[in-house]
Amino acid sequence: MRMYDLIMKKRNGYALTEEEIKYMISGYTKGDIPDYQMSAFTMAVYFRGMNEEETYHLTMEMAHSGELLDLSGIPGIKVDKHSTGGVGDKTSLAVMPLLASFGLKSAKMSGRGLGHTGGTVDKLESFSGFHTEISMEQFINQVKDVGISIIGQTKDLAPADKKLYALRDVTATVENISLIASSIMSKKLAAGASVILLDVKTGSGAFMKTEADSVALAEEMVKIGKNAGRTMIAVISDMNQPLGNAVGNALEVKEAIATLNGEGPEDFTKLVYEIVSEFLLKTGLAKSKDEAFAMIDEKIAKKEGLEKLALFVEAQGGTKEEVYHPELLPKAEYVMEIKSDKEGYISHIQCEEIGICSMMLGGGREKKEDIIDPAVGIVLSKKVGDFVNDGETLAVMHYNSATHTPPLDAVKRFLSAYTISDEKPVKLPLIYKIID
Amino acid sequence: MRMYDLIMKKRNGYALTEEEIKYMISGYTKGDIPDYQMSAFTMAVYFRGMNEEETYHLTMEMAHSGELLDLSGIPGIKVDKHSTGGVGDKTSLAVMPLLASFGLKSAKMSGRGLGHTGGTVDKLESFSGFHTEISMEQFINQVKDVGISIIGQTKDLAPADKKLYALRDVTATVENISLIASSIMSKKLAAGASVILLDVKTGSGAFMKTEADSVALAEEMVKIGKNAGRTMIAVISDMNQPLGNAVGNALEVKEAIATLNGEGPEDFTKLVYEIVSEFLLKTGLAKSKDEAFAMIDEKIAKKEGLEKLALFVEAQGGTKEEVYHPELLPKAEYVMEIKSDKEGYISHIQCEEIGICSMMLGGGREKKEDIIDPAVGIVLSKKVGDFVNDGETLAVMHYNSATHTPPLDAVKRFLSAYTISDEKPVKLPLIYKIID
Repeated sequence: MRMYDLIMKKRNGYALTEEEIKYMISGYTKGDIPDYQMSAFTMAVYFRGMNEEETYHLTMEMAHSGELLDLSGIPGIKVDKHSTGGVGDKTSLAVMPLLASFGLKSAKMSGRGLGHTGGTVDKLESFSGFHTEISMEQFINQVKDVGISIIGQTKDLAPADKKLYALRDVTATVENISLIASSIMSKKLAAGASVILLDVKTGSGAFMKTEADSVALAEEMVKIGKNAGRTMIAVISDMNQPLGNAVGNALEVKEAIATLNGEGPEDFTKLVYEIVSEFLLKTGLAKSKDEAFAMIDEKIAKKEGLEKLALFVEAQGGTKEEVYHPELLPKAEYVMEIKSDKEGYISHIQCEEIGICSMMLGGGREKKEDIIDPAVGIVLSKKVGDFVNDGETLAVMHYNSATHTPPLDAVKRFLSAYTISDEKPVKLPLIYKIID
Repeated sequence: MRMYDLIMKKRNGYALTEEEIKYMISGYTKGDIPDYQMSAFTMAVYFRGMNEEETYHLTMEMAHSGELLDLSGIPGIKVDKHSTGGVGDKTSLAVMPLLASFGLKSAKMSGRGLGHTGGTVDKLESFSGFHTEISMEQFINQVKDVGISIIGQTKDLAPADKKLYALRDVTATVENISLIASSIMSKKLAAGASVILLDVKTGSGAFMKTEADSVALAEEMVKIGKNAGRTMIAVISDMNQPLGNAVGNALEVKEAIATLNGEGPEDFTKLVYEIVSEFLLKTGLAKSKDEAFAMIDEKIAKKEGLEKLALFVEAQGGTKEEVYHPELLPKAEYVMEIKSDKEGYISHIQCEEIGICSMMLGGGREKKEDIIDPAVGIVLSKKVGDFVNDGETLAVMHYNSATHTPPLDAVKRFLSAYTISDEKPVKLPLIYKIID
């Protein structure tokens, strides 16, 4: 078998066999197949696509290219909630503790954020002392004891995906549904959970800008997971504006804590309920959505989720008190109200721009080496559909500044991300579709 | 400027600017842009194509990526006849001496053959002692004195094309008309001739299998050459069967010599006349095709072309007597007649297969390192449209064998390349189109 022939085959629109995909991925992982052949192949895939079978085999080969996480020693149901990433997406911070309060175990591998979306690890590192450099033994034991553990992505998990993704990232071949689906799912399958919920974000702040693309990606991933014997759920949720109000690491942690106290923003709270209830239904812990919602209400009233979060933070070196007293979390030196210069309804928010504003304040990374300031960010006062008066506050910017000057570039960018018009816009749905 | 953005731009179907192409080609030649980005780009070009302007800029950048051959010291008109390659294509061996007899100068850079088509240098090396490792000074002086010189392709001529072609060759991105046209034309432009004739072969033994593709390639190349200020002619000629009767190095040399003696096969002689007459018309040496043909007749009658070939061979270390006594050229130890096992008209020859048969006998290279046996090959007795009786000879195979056994694999392959049918087929045209 020769890689040349496989490139040609795909270029000419034919499907690769399982054996051919095996040859390609193992050869690439070992370094026998050079980057320049692989990038020509991925560009051919960009134009020709891959069918369901090819995508499945690609995923399985990448999942098996390194070590598989063995969660068999952990009693109970192992679950995994994954988001494709969005602005203000602190969902895992509220969902995992609630799941743990129901006995569902999250053994999570998570990467850091890059660009306009933040990573769960970055947010958790707002807790002073919290870290993810833990041993595999501690990781497993903590899942048993607390029900939640989070570890940085190891080199050994799906190394083929790691190598291939890095190549796609510099050759403009990221944007293909089969390649995206297999990349995500190879890591999910290798990470060992039996029930996987994918929160596929859609809209201007998401990787997938249209509902159709998001649904296609979700369907592809659900199929792969089911073929691999996992229980799958995909939620297509809105990312045409930030989720909740807070954007920025410690600010988002505070919002997640508020939500576990029953005081979160409406949209974010609803998404947390929807996601947790899907897990409860799929694992048989609840019979109906109503029952599930009531069960979650009770956990929140009893602060059981909050307690799980505190145990989890403490287990990974963090400061438990910051969960119960979030005012102890990092705080920016300055706050500045951004005011509207006209009156009307918020008809549109360029969501990605809000993520970029937060990054400009130091809340996200433009390059891998950048250091994050956990305190900074933006808290929105007005979202799509809200009415705003001339001079009324749209958002509060939290920033640190060596020169004591407000970050005018970020303010300008923020303001131009908002569209204000006379007519009341149609409200954005929170959830577009659930696929299982 | 970033190569990533240029890949994305092409992938999304947009045209690159002159500045962008400059950046890309100079960066790639210097090694600043890695192979894996370039191969993703060429695959995107495979799917999206390049417009006329892009193709022109790509060609010019590659032509100027190294040294330009300076032919200004040579008096007279410098011409270049280039073939896209075919089976039995010994045209340059007869055309260049005739052009020289008219005072038209050929300063030719030529590569070796690979696969089913042979290279001009390989054929010329059938003359004992002939070699192309000559100094640039000798090369130029010989063009002045004899009118013909041939040198192996130097590293310094269009190095960007050399590097890019090698990459395309292993990434299944050769087959794109803009990339093929710019590759050929960058070398032609760098080689400095002012009148360029491209013999674009079409058919089963050619790189371009269909007339439409061949015409498109020819038109693209003619446009580039004209934009660069050269006089251009493209001849679309048939390669649905071998050209002439001889396939194999010394056998083809003998056929070219016979043609310069006025005793060549009809089809090959006609192509030589057509090509030489196009040069005579374009350079103003002849006013009409009839006049040109009469002028060529005269040169052949006076053996002036033959003399030029002899001077040329001698100047490059070869044995002049072999030109006047071609029976002195390398001869295979064995000959074997391949006979037809049925009666009828030759309706079709899979031309590429005949080239492969010659390669199997040792007459061509499968890999770059292979050593060629100049003596071996095939001489066809029957071509498309001819009638053959059962038991009559189709071709004579010339072979050497360490084991004294005839090359049965090659014979089998040869026979299955011939289709014999009851109905007389339509005769194949020799020239489909002339573009200038």
